[in-house]
Amino acid sequence: MKLLRFGDTGAEKPGLMDDTGQIRDLSGQIDDITGDTLSPASLERLRGIDPASLPAVEGAPRIGPCVGSVGKVIAIGLNYADHAAEANMALPEEPIVFFKATSSISGPNDPVEIPRGSSKTDWEIELGVVIGTRAKYVSEADALSHVAGYCIFNDVSERDFQLHRSGQWVKGKSHDTFAPMGPWLVTADAVADPQNLAMSLSVNGQTMQDGSTRTMHFSVATVIAHLSQFMTLNPGDVIATGTPPGVGMGQKPQVYLREGDEMVLSIEGLGEQRQTCIAARD
Amino acid sequence: MKLLRFGDTGAEKPGLMDDTGQIRDLSGQIDDITGDTLSPASLERLRGIDPASLPAVEGAPRIGPCVGSVGKVIAIGLNYADHAAEANMALPEEPIVFFKATSSISGPNDPVEIPRGSSKTDWEIELGVVIGTRAKYVSEADALSHVAGYCIFNDVSERDFQLHRSGQWVKGKSHDTFAPMGPWLVTADAVADPQNLAMSLSVNGQTMQDGSTRTMHFSVATVIAHLSQFMTLNPGDVIATGTPPGVGMGQKPQVYLREGDEMVLSIEGLGEQRQTCIAARD
Repeated sequence: MKLLRFGDTGAEKPGLMDDTGQIRDLSGQIDDITGDTLSPASLERLRGIDPASLPAVEGAPRIGPCVGSVGKVIAIGLNYADHAAEANMALPEEPIVFFKATSSISGPNDPVEIPRGSSKTDWEIELGVVIGTRAKYVSEADALSHVAGYCIFNDVSERDFQLHRSGQWVKGKSHDTFAPMGPWLVTADAVADPQNLAMSLSVNGQTMQDGSTRTMHFSVATVIAHLSQFMTLNPGDVIATGTPPGVGMGQKPQVYLREGDEMVLSIEGLGEQRQTCIAARD
Repeated sequence: MKLLRFGDTGAEKPGLMDDTGQIRDLSGQIDDITGDTLSPASLERLRGIDPASLPAVEGAPRIGPCVGSVGKVIAIGLNYADHAAEANMALPEEPIVFFKATSSISGPNDPVEIPRGSSKTDWEIELGVVIGTRAKYVSEADALSHVAGYCIFNDVSERDFQLHRSGQWVKGKSHDTFAPMGPWLVTADAVADPQNLAMSLSVNGQTMQDGSTRTMHFSVATVIAHLSQFMTLNPGDVIATGTPPGVGMGQKPQVYLREGDEMVLSIEGLGEQRQTCIAARD
């Protein structure tokens, strides 16, 4: 099942993408796609609805982030061996964890802002994992049972703010529009193996990242179990699981985003994102 | 005006503390105390209500965190010169910023959990600042106009998780109950000078921290203006502005919290918190 949210920013309605590529309106069934509606029971109920019985959405509405009211965005650093190498950083002994501001979440095709004073805004395609049931002190064996679904996540990063503005990465990870999510939340039952998904990102038509979740260092299950030792994961929380090689910082010479640049991101089975870079707005 | 939330966890009602110390029920006026109800217009309306006209709340209900539906908890590291010295860390050239999980927020008198495997759970009394209006790229001169009010904030921290578990402080800052807030949100108009508030914290009756926001390195205004260069501050967001000397890690020898220990925190005009330490819950 491909769940999505459509409509203007802040006023998105819940929907699903049917097998013909038609968006269907779920707002008669649920208020929104949030932690409250991602429980196994809620998803089971939605699965029982014949998509053809739902109103078809006319035209081509804006697609919002695929989950609303996200409680926290947790991101994993240096989780692909080759990316750690290109970043000149050692592969960690356990997952490196940081947060992105929930206010940085945006739709998959919304413009991405280049912050004022930025000269090093960079891309990172990542597998996004959305939690469906509360997880605290869970084992690796149980971890995937807490996942509602998966989506594309662009962990946009300002490298100078991240690395050279008094420690802690958060300053380079939290600008508005630095967390495009979607287009769909593909429910876990529809993803055969989250550790075997091709992923790619291009900038202005040139492929920059071309990898697979197969080379993830700490698996989704390991990451969830690990995180749950340090904090409670709640329904609707999002985990960005790290990026494969090919970020701008890793190029020789380095390449960063400028106004007008277009990123296209895709992950096997999870759809495509397309973002144009613009100047920061007030 | 002293706003508060009372009742069971997750089902708190909005209230206020009147001049006689009586809790009054605001649930006939607003749904909750959140970003939506902290706008200047909303606060002005609440100020216009005669507290005596509101229902008195009987008994001694649990007091919840003074703000609900918090979007992000932003914390400032090493923001008092003496605390940086005791932590053996250099005073930063600009604010060190990290996030705490919103799921770590708890009521001012709720028990504080000692995480499994923790031997270094520590306290940090801090001035909490709650945002009332959206702030992006704001100047230091305008910054305080975006503040709805102030509260006590205990930035509970597991030092080993924070400093020795693969970088980024978040792992030691995000356990459930690691962010007691309240008892009250004292609106900004009722705080004459946020940079001149005495603050103290005791453990089992022994004073450990005894300072003043006067010795803060980066002021509240500086912090807000700085943060707003990197992310948008939204109504209901909380900023923990750093702690004065006297944390457990700074003692010689170091002292950490154990089950049964009781912390008492107070800040001038903002009330008192009282937490007992317990074992982590599932």
